[in-house]
Amino acid sequence: MFLKSVFKAASKDQWRPIIKAFTEVVGKDGVVRRKDELLTYECDGLASYRQRPAVVVLPRSTEEVAAVVQLCNQYNLKWVARGAGTGLSGGALPLEDGVLIVTARMNEILETDLSNQRVVVQPGVINNWVTQAVSGKGFYYAPDPSSQIICSIGGNIAENSGGVHCLKYGVTTNHVLALKIVTADGSIVDVGSQVPEMPGYDLTGLFVGSEGTLGIATEITLRILKAPESVAVLLADFTTIEAAGNAVAAIIGDGIIPGGMEIMDNLTINAVEDVVGAGCYPRDAGAILLVELDGLEVEVTHNIQRTAEICRENGARETTIATDAEKRAKLWKGRKAAFAAAGHLSPDYFVQDGVIPRTQLAAVLRDIEALSQEYGYPIANVFHAGDGNLHPLILYDESVAGALETVEEIGGKILKRCVEAGGSISGEHGIGADKNCYMSEMFSAVDMETMQYVRTAFNPKGLANPTKLFPTPRTCGEAANAQKTAQWKGAQLY
Amino acid sequence: MFLKSVFKAASKDQWRPIIKAFTEVVGKDGVVRRKDELLTYECDGLASYRQRPAVVVLPRSTEEVAAVVQLCNQYNLKWVARGAGTGLSGGALPLEDGVLIVTARMNEILETDLSNQRVVVQPGVINNWVTQAVSGKGFYYAPDPSSQIICSIGGNIAENSGGVHCLKYGVTTNHVLALKIVTADGSIVDVGSQVPEMPGYDLTGLFVGSEGTLGIATEITLRILKAPESVAVLLADFTTIEAAGNAVAAIIGDGIIPGGMEIMDNLTINAVEDVVGAGCYPRDAGAILLVELDGLEVEVTHNIQRTAEICRENGARETTIATDAEKRAKLWKGRKAAFAAAGHLSPDYFVQDGVIPRTQLAAVLRDIEALSQEYGYPIANVFHAGDGNLHPLILYDESVAGALETVEEIGGKILKRCVEAGGSISGEHGIGADKNCYMSEMFSAVDMETMQYVRTAFNPKGLANPTKLFPTPRTCGEAANAQKTAQWKGAQLY
Repeated sequence: MFLKSVFKAASKDQWRPIIKAFTEVVGKDGVVRRKDELLTYECDGLASYRQRPAVVVLPRSTEEVAAVVQLCNQYNLKWVARGAGTGLSGGALPLEDGVLIVTARMNEILETDLSNQRVVVQPGVINNWVTQAVSGKGFYYAPDPSSQIICSIGGNIAENSGGVHCLKYGVTTNHVLALKIVTADGSIVDVGSQVPEMPGYDLTGLFVGSEGTLGIATEITLRILKAPESVAVLLADFTTIEAAGNAVAAIIGDGIIPGGMEIMDNLTINAVEDVVGAGCYPRDAGAILLVELDGLEVEVTHNIQRTAEICRENGARETTIATDAEKRAKLWKGRKAAFAAAGHLSPDYFVQDGVIPRTQLAAVLRDIEALSQEYGYPIANVFHAGDGNLHPLILYDESVAGALETVEEIGGKILKRCVEAGGSISGEHGIGADKNCYMSEMFSAVDMETMQYVRTAFNPKGLANPTKLFPTPRTCGEAANAQKTAQWKGAQLY
Repeated sequence: MFLKSVFKAASKDQWRPIIKAFTEVVGKDGVVRRKDELLTYECDGLASYRQRPAVVVLPRSTEEVAAVVQLCNQYNLKWVARGAGTGLSGGALPLEDGVLIVTARMNEILETDLSNQRVVVQPGVINNWVTQAVSGKGFYYAPDPSSQIICSIGGNIAENSGGVHCLKYGVTTNHVLALKIVTADGSIVDVGSQVPEMPGYDLTGLFVGSEGTLGIATEITLRILKAPESVAVLLADFTTIEAAGNAVAAIIGDGIIPGGMEIMDNLTINAVEDVVGAGCYPRDAGAILLVELDGLEVEVTHNIQRTAEICRENGARETTIATDAEKRAKLWKGRKAAFAAAGHLSPDYFVQDGVIPRTQLAAVLRDIEALSQEYGYPIANVFHAGDGNLHPLILYDESVAGALETVEEIGGKILKRCVEAGGSISGEHGIGADKNCYMSEMFSAVDMETMQYVRTAFNPKGLANPTKLFPTPRTCGEAANAQKTAQWKGAQLY
């Protein structure tokens, strides 16, 4: 499946001067034009959407990015930014006849300022490198998406990535102090600062999670945290997933804020046992709950015991506590392998990403189970329970005709159920090319129109990642009258 | 001092149909037009700026606000929103021949949802009422500006207010989940949701702190927190303010995150002792440090002892710990009275509000002292030390010719020093009408232009709080070429 361009395709002759201009900016080794080499870039982590870009450009600096974007403006070329390409919503899916700006060569840690707990990086720096760079001094970078050893900070900014620890520590936006941005018109803009209080509009917060539609972050100032003195992990097993959900609510209700809190259902437990083995989790459990606590030793020691107590009060059959690193890793092992293990349950799986208020966990999980029964597709549940971020895995076989369509239908129904429950259609994977048609489930036409006006403020010609994030009139129809109202809006500065 | 209107004044005849239309929307008792009654509204907490509005309108609902704003659009009337009018930067200063929309009658708590830890309020609700409404159930609303018993949530949203506890808990923006907004063109827009993860642009974060330039928040969903199990306060006295500053850095460096951490210098200590008396603080101390810790009892008990130890290691002469409510209140008493007490030191004082990285505290305080010596004006320091938010109080006598101008000059130099140190020109009081000329100290022309484009997205005719927040070409000159570039920006939606 690929998205048709909304722009006219250019001929080879028309590309010649453009390629020459790009080469002058980034050098010959920074321009990829050969078809076989372009293959690498034709999709991101959402491999069901594919499109070969016209050209890939690999700048090395803010100035080079600005020059490349200015050329795109000059030649009216639509463009997409790509970090490591691990995104799961097709946000970095190239566009037909478009330019793909890849940040892979912008991979330097520019500054480390431990006394002010900040690190300045280029967007191509891998998430995990940040922690590696400061862990020797007792610091770490909190947002930890599952892909943290391969995903880039630039991509994390675009998608406002979460992770296991975002319950306590927040998602990417809570850890970005400042950005240097090349906006879609090629301007270099500084937003944010090293102190948390800033006057004016919070453009840093606006930019994080904007999925490449406003520009490219070329320098990113991240907040790093002091590594906790002590960490403990608790494994509790329950006969039902509802009981595990109730334990989650009770732990938070008790005033404990775990670093992370994950639930895995019976189907996932057994998949993990089949693949990883080693008796990670009890095969007959309805669900297991993993709780990680961190902080001062006195606090962790007290709270982990209290957490175990609460689990038992909520029907846990058994609780295991690990404090040393090796034993903690053993308890986490199955959870870390869950997605890979799910791949062994069936030829294919479709992972959905929705959020619900914690209080709705039991009700929504029941409805997901009902959908599974109704359609006859098994659904495995493994999720960030503490913040209500569900990741149902719908198991199917793509070689069966119509299976993908049915699975997408189930996925859509799950998202609608999340919105009904007061939640959101995306917890951490983003909207991209995948979920833009669901935006109208969450936002009214006027809500989305307001976002479009903001988009226009940064991206006046609409060249930066068009067709992503928002439904387009062509594919969905909600933004139909946007063009009209744009005539009188956005015209006057004062 | 007042700001001249950039719009043409309307005649009485021109106002007649407008007043009639307003009256139809909000009723006769919702329109204030008599000169003596308008007096109440001619300034906010920054009383040195005064301007009588043409009319005050007091809507009761989102729909009424939208209708009023639509009328302003229809008649091209500039308007300013006002909450309780306690702001310290003139953000709610009326404009000549303009409309003042006052939210005082929108003072209902619309919904209390303890299980999801949220409260929905109208903008005129007083900050402290939120905590009062939920404290019986063990919850509270964290942002606590000094004015919390009189300031409104709507004003807190506009100014992104802070308070003593924002070191640990963040400022207002960290506690706003969702907003219903009437944008400056009269549209009703919903932003945010009750779950923290949301796709699309973070317009909630963009709106908070926008100082009334984008629209009016008419329904506000706030996050409430569980009241901590235990609270302890430590008072430590030091012979120098530098030593107190070093203790602050050492406490945070140790991994302890206090709820609040305040420093008062010798001048302020003695002012407080003169006024409040009762031996609050030692008169011969160079500075005192107040640290409040909250959390689980086991954690607070351990950390408060450790904090006292760190203070002694950094030269504290004496440390006092209070855990019960009465004794804690006694330790806080002097700090709470500090601004009032400063009023007794001299006929007038000018309070500045700047932020610096914590590591720069000692250096910047030394420079403030040097400025005090150079100009011969005493400066008292009382501030949120944990987050580097300085509040130097410059003492003067307004009846002395030129004194106010000199004091403003000193204030400006302090702000410039904050920016040089990597900080900000406002920690929590906002820019408003007071500091917009300093914006260019922090932001380049292109940075501010980008903010202007965003402003235009919400406020296309420029009627919502013009002349505030940003320097205008007339008063400063930085935005001179904005009009020109606006011609090609902001014109296309896609």
